[in-house]
Amino acid sequence: MRGTCCAWCCDPRRPRSPRPGAARSPSGSAGPCSSSSPWSRCSSSPLPPGAPTRRRSSSLVPKRYKDIVGDGGSNIEGQVSEQHARLHARLAEVRAVVAVVSGKGGVGKSSLTANLAACWALEGRRVGVLDADLNGPTMATMLGVRGRRLVVGAEGVTPPEGALGVRVMSMDLLLPSDDAPLIWEAPTQAESHTWRGAMEANALREFLADTAWGALDVLLLDLPPGTDRLVTVASLLPVLSGTIVVTIPSDVSHLVVRKSITIAAQTKAPVLGLVENMSGLFPGPSGAELAREAGIPFLGAVPFDPALAAAADLGEPLVAAAPTCEAARALTAIARTVAAALARADVPSSRAPRPA
Amino acid sequence: MRGTCCAWCCDPRRPRSPRPGAARSPSGSAGPCSSSSPWSRCSSSPLPPGAPTRRRSSSLVPKRYKDIVGDGGSNIEGQVSEQHARLHARLAEVRAVVAVVSGKGGVGKSSLTANLAACWALEGRRVGVLDADLNGPTMATMLGVRGRRLVVGAEGVTPPEGALGVRVMSMDLLLPSDDAPLIWEAPTQAESHTWRGAMEANALREFLADTAWGALDVLLLDLPPGTDRLVTVASLLPVLSGTIVVTIPSDVSHLVVRKSITIAAQTKAPVLGLVENMSGLFPGPSGAELAREAGIPFLGAVPFDPALAAAADLGEPLVAAAPTCEAARALTAIARTVAAALARADVPSSRAPRPA
Repeated sequence: MRGTCCAWCCDPRRPRSPRPGAARSPSGSAGPCSSSSPWSRCSSSPLPPGAPTRRRSSSLVPKRYKDIVGDGGSNIEGQVSEQHARLHARLAEVRAVVAVVSGKGGVGKSSLTANLAACWALEGRRVGVLDADLNGPTMATMLGVRGRRLVVGAEGVTPPEGALGVRVMSMDLLLPSDDAPLIWEAPTQAESHTWRGAMEANALREFLADTAWGALDVLLLDLPPGTDRLVTVASLLPVLSGTIVVTIPSDVSHLVVRKSITIAAQTKAPVLGLVENMSGLFPGPSGAELAREAGIPFLGAVPFDPALAAAADLGEPLVAAAPTCEAARALTAIARTVAAALARADVPSSRAPRPA
Repeated sequence: MRGTCCAWCCDPRRPRSPRPGAARSPSGSAGPCSSSSPWSRCSSSPLPPGAPTRRRSSSLVPKRYKDIVGDGGSNIEGQVSEQHARLHARLAEVRAVVAVVSGKGGVGKSSLTANLAACWALEGRRVGVLDADLNGPTMATMLGVRGRRLVVGAEGVTPPEGALGVRVMSMDLLLPSDDAPLIWEAPTQAESHTWRGAMEANALREFLADTAWGALDVLLLDLPPGTDRLVTVASLLPVLSGTIVVTIPSDVSHLVVRKSITIAAQTKAPVLGLVENMSGLFPGPSGAELAREAGIPFLGAVPFDPALAAAADLGEPLVAAAPTCEAARALTAIARTVAAALARADVPSSRAPRPA
């Protein structure tokens, strides 16, 4: 990779010389990739009227694997095609893939994921959970499989099962210690931001394709914070059955979650609905109102209960540990609503049959 | 950019053919970049004993701007050098740059940042805040400058000032509406994960270099969730004076925050200490204990108070809105401890003099 500012600098089909009237940074000198500068969004941008800020010409579409000529013998197109085929074959045994998203961190995405998985497992469904938060993985803790050894067999890597039978794959199972952060192996970590996203997408693709998930009724994906992550995950999947968006009752959370709803609505998968976590903890705006404004279903509000966090720390989701408490009952109702939505004919799924 | 799996595939100095004994994915076929496969971290990895899993040879260092020969006339090295020089000149007027990090989302990084900024502004210090969370920006809301128009002048973009005089720059000031997510302009969004990190780093570099911060006693950087983000931000700065790490009292949070402490300790900047937010809300482990185990200062515990979130939603930090409440007093004490640490001779800073 040449340069570090963006992928387009090295596209041989990109015009190399500064274009007349191209966006310039406020100090007057055109920075690299200035047409994608954040300042081009500024209402008082120094752009001349009519200056081009988007390049949509079909002649500027970047190269993909299939366009590579002369790959030095690595057969990268063959390798990638093989991995895609493996991923498709693996997920053909999974009836529904559901992503739990928020954009905002700390609103209880992982807690909701663990409790949905536990609810469905308690009802006899075959459930898998992929912890798509590679840098801050928590699903192994919350589902009670931390420290379990991964076994590689002929079918792939066997995901450990928690007490309820939920199959879990998480980067947490691959890191050597609690305080070890995820650092990608590379000759240098300098300017690692240029390849971090590609490494993460590749790891998620391998987690999906190489884990021996077996036949599943549902595979839940617990996404990291960041409104942009759903785009990456959706691009890796042959079918995404739906997304569940999570918020808490604060203006600050709603501001970020609104952006995530926009992104979720742009994927091909239906937005199954919005969940409000930590209900009653803040005097903030209503999740039901946000769902109504955004035109998506409101799945329910989960009252704040410190026992939820305590149960997560102990690796036993609250719906299993204390199924009659108010928060657990709210979570169970949400799980049933989502299951009913997934059973509808208009929700995309693979062809694998459900258990009797 | 060729291919999408990682930056190294196209490095002309990387060996192209599969190496004997190189890491292979569990299904037996070597995926792209298999030496960086997540499975190479697996304890029962199918790697033969002694197989190479790291390539540290100096002959494999990737290219950087200065190595580019024949850039097609774009003079990318000149452009980047000029931007770096502008950034250095801008930050020479800033006495201290402090990053607020966590790794975990939703632990109150932004709330702490807003209240530290407000405390210092109330004491007469010149304070700037850069919202480094491009996808989930909240600082404009929390510091009361949402919807303010950015003005471009001869010196750069003037950051809006809140009621307390804190200068704020945030992607939120550049997005057209609440529900508009940040989407980088590009000929296609397909496989955007390959260039997202580079785009984000470039935007942060421009925010730092092109904002007319003026002379500041301290510039606070509010980082997004993700243990990897501090590396990017630190690489953009000539001097990082220190990091403040934030947690909440739960095992799940501590698990992620431990990784962030490891990353923070690896930067050249001192770890100024750990703050425990939402103290008393969960029956979880102690932040003071985590700080002791990690060998970093414990800056204090901020008791949970829903008024903190309410004040953030209203754009007036709690230390200004209700300075005598317990949470505000804890935040003020933390701000004073950090200010004292920044005044120490061993904390890196630029040469700009402090106000009398």
